[in-house]
Amino acid sequence: MVKNIGINGYGTIGKRVADAVSAQDDMKIVGVTKRSPDYEAKSAVEKGYDLYISVPEREAEFEEAGIEVAGTADELFEKLDLVVDCTPGGVGAANKTDIYEKIGLKAIFEGGEDHDAIGSSFNAEANYASNIGKDYVRVVSCNTTGLCRTLKPIKDIAGIKNVRAVMVRRGADPNDVKRGPINAIVPTTEVPSHHGPDVQTIIDDINVMTMALIVPTTLMHTHNIMVELEDDSITTDDVLDAFQKAYRVLPVKKSLNLGSTAQIMEYAKDLGRSRGDMYEIPVWEESVNVENGELFYMQAVHQESDVVPENVDAIRAMLELEDDAEKSILKTNKAMGIL
Amino acid sequence: MVKNIGINGYGTIGKRVADAVSAQDDMKIVGVTKRSPDYEAKSAVEKGYDLYISVPEREAEFEEAGIEVAGTADELFEKLDLVVDCTPGGVGAANKTDIYEKIGLKAIFEGGEDHDAIGSSFNAEANYASNIGKDYVRVVSCNTTGLCRTLKPIKDIAGIKNVRAVMVRRGADPNDVKRGPINAIVPTTEVPSHHGPDVQTIIDDINVMTMALIVPTTLMHTHNIMVELEDDSITTDDVLDAFQKAYRVLPVKKSLNLGSTAQIMEYAKDLGRSRGDMYEIPVWEESVNVENGELFYMQAVHQESDVVPENVDAIRAMLELEDDAEKSILKTNKAMGIL
Repeated sequence: MVKNIGINGYGTIGKRVADAVSAQDDMKIVGVTKRSPDYEAKSAVEKGYDLYISVPEREAEFEEAGIEVAGTADELFEKLDLVVDCTPGGVGAANKTDIYEKIGLKAIFEGGEDHDAIGSSFNAEANYASNIGKDYVRVVSCNTTGLCRTLKPIKDIAGIKNVRAVMVRRGADPNDVKRGPINAIVPTTEVPSHHGPDVQTIIDDINVMTMALIVPTTLMHTHNIMVELEDDSITTDDVLDAFQKAYRVLPVKKSLNLGSTAQIMEYAKDLGRSRGDMYEIPVWEESVNVENGELFYMQAVHQESDVVPENVDAIRAMLELEDDAEKSILKTNKAMGIL
Repeated sequence: MVKNIGINGYGTIGKRVADAVSAQDDMKIVGVTKRSPDYEAKSAVEKGYDLYISVPEREAEFEEAGIEVAGTADELFEKLDLVVDCTPGGVGAANKTDIYEKIGLKAIFEGGEDHDAIGSSFNAEANYASNIGKDYVRVVSCNTTGLCRTLKPIKDIAGIKNVRAVMVRRGADPNDVKRGPINAIVPTTEVPSHHGPDVQTIIDDINVMTMALIVPTTLMHTHNIMVELEDDSITTDDVLDAFQKAYRVLPVKKSLNLGSTAQIMEYAKDLGRSRGDMYEIPVWEESVNVENGELFYMQAVHQESDVVPENVDAIRAMLELEDDAEKSILKTNKAMGIL
């Protein structure tokens, strides 16, 4: 039976998860929620999603804006097998205790929530099995997802002694006019940054240290990664081969004029992707380099979309639609056109 | 006797070195050269520097622009004890063989030249003594200078097993309207980048691996540095203390609202620095962190000015004005107002 899914918070991530769920044959979107009658709310209705409002008192505002309302968020929740909570960081954890636990609704949360508040964290290729049947699961952040996607295959072929990574983060999303910087580099002076511990919520037996900073770009994050390998017979080609075989890692060549985040985003548009999204983690092939048992590589992360297929797989694991991670991943990938 | 110094190439670095030399009492600027009659040429004359032209055929253009010409570059070179060659990368090496060696003129080159083409590389705190009396010396690039400035004191107090650094480079200088990126991260996919080997031209017994990328900012580079220490009893405070004692390293606090390159540049302006320059290498105190014998820290590099005092010290070493590195550094620092 096709499962009934709702999206609480139809924003940057929520609207993408709604479309990804709609592309599957074993789940469907029953409705999405919005607080404000803005262009995203309008667009949700135009795309055919039933729109439920989080703040019932604001119904008149939606009417005034000509946006049809199907009901309140609470009414939506009653119809669901699972809700994907894409509200801003921190709100999800409050919703868990205040709403979902009280009505016994399974829920997925995004990377803005703390692991401890939710209890379980998810990455399809790294720990699908441990989330089967769970009621509350957090899909880790875009950066943590990116790290897990490439570290897992490396760990599988070579073993990992130690990871050091420097995350160069975009300053704002393309539609975000309120944040900066415009012309500065802003280091995250807390070292290590939270990303390393966050990876350990997925791959618990890994040593990983991260540093992070923010730069004036909107397109993607990049990661500069150094991995001390246990197996020092591993070559650069072995690693490239492992990246090729991983389901959501995309080796790209600078020599094909893909030497920056801007060109990769243009490539995603050329692929005809919805919203120009890049669900895969592009790794620059030329940067992959093993020297004296240490692997170096550089990758990019499309902050708005890399976690989207993970949400679909998390739904399948939690609702026990599929017990095999690989089968779920392949099904999701096929429906979404992932390379 | 006050030594006669000339600047070949009065651009971003050249004009700053001219002013720094003028601030000393044991050397003076006899003249500077320019190829084109632009605002920098005009400003040189207005500041009182005699202007010599590199392309004699263009004298009429300078006249037309109302910029007074004192003679040709070749005429300037005859009057000098030493020339500081601040021409674009690669031109300096050609000038060395085509001009300076033929007329027996000592010359300093900048970081755009290869070490091998010049023969000796310079950083005041790290290897002043080995450049005393030399005829041709390269002051290493802004990034390599920044790495040497902080790695040397760390090596002195703790010994260094291994350095890993990720350099986040500014896309263009503030006055450079031709370069990008505007909105992208551009990885240097050659790993390791050239910076590591360049540090080894100064500190030859150091293991150092660097990765680099370019981001859309004009203000400063930043470095994210990880150092495996030989002495694992060293604490964060020991390192901060060593940075405090280093002559051209400036610990700064995010908590004093200096948490980005933009704020540090504003601070340099508030200090009344010529052109708003930051000659020191600012290190974010909060980022300095020793964990399990590994030191992590983040620093910034003002690409237009950190090498300027190094040029002054290099002059002193090459002309044997001072045999003691510390005395030269203190003299330069005092004249330039370095903290």
